[in-house]
Amino acid sequence: MEHIRRNERMAALTKLLTSAPNRIFTLSHFCELFGAAKSTLSEDIDLLKGVFTRFQLGQLETVTGAAGGVRYRRAISPEKAHSFVSDLCQQLSTTSRVLPGGFLYLSDILSQHELVTTMGTIIAQQYYDAQPDFVLTMETKGIPVALMTAEAMGLPLVIARRSSKVYEGPAVNINYVSGSAGHIETMSLNRRAVTEGTRALIVDDFLKAGGTAKGMIDLMAEFHVDVIGTAFVMSTAAPQKKQIENDRSLMVMDVDPADPSTLTVRPADWLTQSVKA
Amino acid sequence: MEHIRRNERMAALTKLLTSAPNRIFTLSHFCELFGAAKSTLSEDIDLLKGVFTRFQLGQLETVTGAAGGVRYRRAISPEKAHSFVSDLCQQLSTTSRVLPGGFLYLSDILSQHELVTTMGTIIAQQYYDAQPDFVLTMETKGIPVALMTAEAMGLPLVIARRSSKVYEGPAVNINYVSGSAGHIETMSLNRRAVTEGTRALIVDDFLKAGGTAKGMIDLMAEFHVDVIGTAFVMSTAAPQKKQIENDRSLMVMDVDPADPSTLTVRPADWLTQSVKA
Repeated sequence: MEHIRRNERMAALTKLLTSAPNRIFTLSHFCELFGAAKSTLSEDIDLLKGVFTRFQLGQLETVTGAAGGVRYRRAISPEKAHSFVSDLCQQLSTTSRVLPGGFLYLSDILSQHELVTTMGTIIAQQYYDAQPDFVLTMETKGIPVALMTAEAMGLPLVIARRSSKVYEGPAVNINYVSGSAGHIETMSLNRRAVTEGTRALIVDDFLKAGGTAKGMIDLMAEFHVDVIGTAFVMSTAAPQKKQIENDRSLMVMDVDPADPSTLTVRPADWLTQSVKA
Repeated sequence: MEHIRRNERMAALTKLLTSAPNRIFTLSHFCELFGAAKSTLSEDIDLLKGVFTRFQLGQLETVTGAAGGVRYRRAISPEKAHSFVSDLCQQLSTTSRVLPGGFLYLSDILSQHELVTTMGTIIAQQYYDAQPDFVLTMETKGIPVALMTAEAMGLPLVIARRSSKVYEGPAVNINYVSGSAGHIETMSLNRRAVTEGTRALIVDDFLKAGGTAKGMIDLMAEFHVDVIGTAFVMSTAAPQKKQIENDRSLMVMDVDPADPSTLTVRPADWLTQSVKA
């Protein structure tokens, strides 16, 4: 093989590592690919760590042990996360976005890949330690941010459906009470979608009373799956008492549905506190 | 600023360019970021082009003209695309995946980020020249592959809903005939979701008779939007005559719904021909 220079290796390494976030690559894998010695690759990685830190491109980590190697994680500093969410809040603080029932029109921001990639990164950072096996969302609007959270964590995404009349094959259905409206709804998931004994991270767009989220947790219980966290793009200030606990949202909105001009949207407290800390 | 070495610049450039596919960055932008001369950056980019080609990491292109600069596009060779799709076909050629009505269970593969990223890359490659302004899909199963197609092309994603009863605000609704079933269904899109006079690329999971796709084209006509292409993950061999034209799918399935053991799944002809060519 023609000799590969350090600058070429470092560029290729950057692409390969950042395209597969949170996946551990062994040094041997790269040694073979580039026809280089382990010591050379170690130096490359050390140099890359410096570049990633200096230009705030994410975190490159060396993982020791039998399954060790090098791993890239998307990362965003508390300050940048807070500033990103604050900008979003400002964009969303538009009374014409207030929808009947105290909801907010979010569909446009929830399908922009740059935005959901950053949201997914912020959410992922909160749950690496809890080591989920997959990300679960409920159709429809939360799918893009859930997909990008799953990508950031290197995990599969599982999507629960609103009903089982959707040509999905044998499914587990549960009924749940949509919190705010008080309607009984059905949630459905294909029997082969998840494996018993695994751990789920729930990611969705909107948390109001928590009926849907509670439904997802109950659905996971049917599959004998633990839910290690619940994350949302937006939660509402009222009702303050949700049907679930330990939820984490990026933004909090407060509005009197009868008077859209009362709308306020702000970054969640934990984001604001992480900057002050 | 402390001097930045070529290998550091090349690593950072790789991350910045590949994180924003199909976006044109000016050389001046990078000159400022790295405190380096244009001639130096030009050399960096030339070296990067070689690395990207050598390790098949995608395409780096210099775009000339007033709005010129350098642009990264995800790319996959015809051989690799065909081989990727062939592997998928093999994985899907399982009679237990056949669902009532002649559908195939695809939900598991349609929410894996590695798979939908590659599918999105293959689809995007077919439509750069047609210069769409956004990607349109219909909820639910096509959302991840549509999002990754949009990401590959640097475009926004727009998601049509199955009905307007979804707290989305003022919407345009159309009725359409779900081709195979013959039911009349409603499709809905928020009035502010797209801009008149723009161009849409439709990406969805499944093409059978084409009723839903025809509905999306009609919906776009209501918004005075041209549809420049329609791409699907899977189409069915029957009916051969679809309600839309110029559709492009990755895979074709053929099955007698009454006898799942007749199932075959193969790469679409255009993929096979691109390898032979």
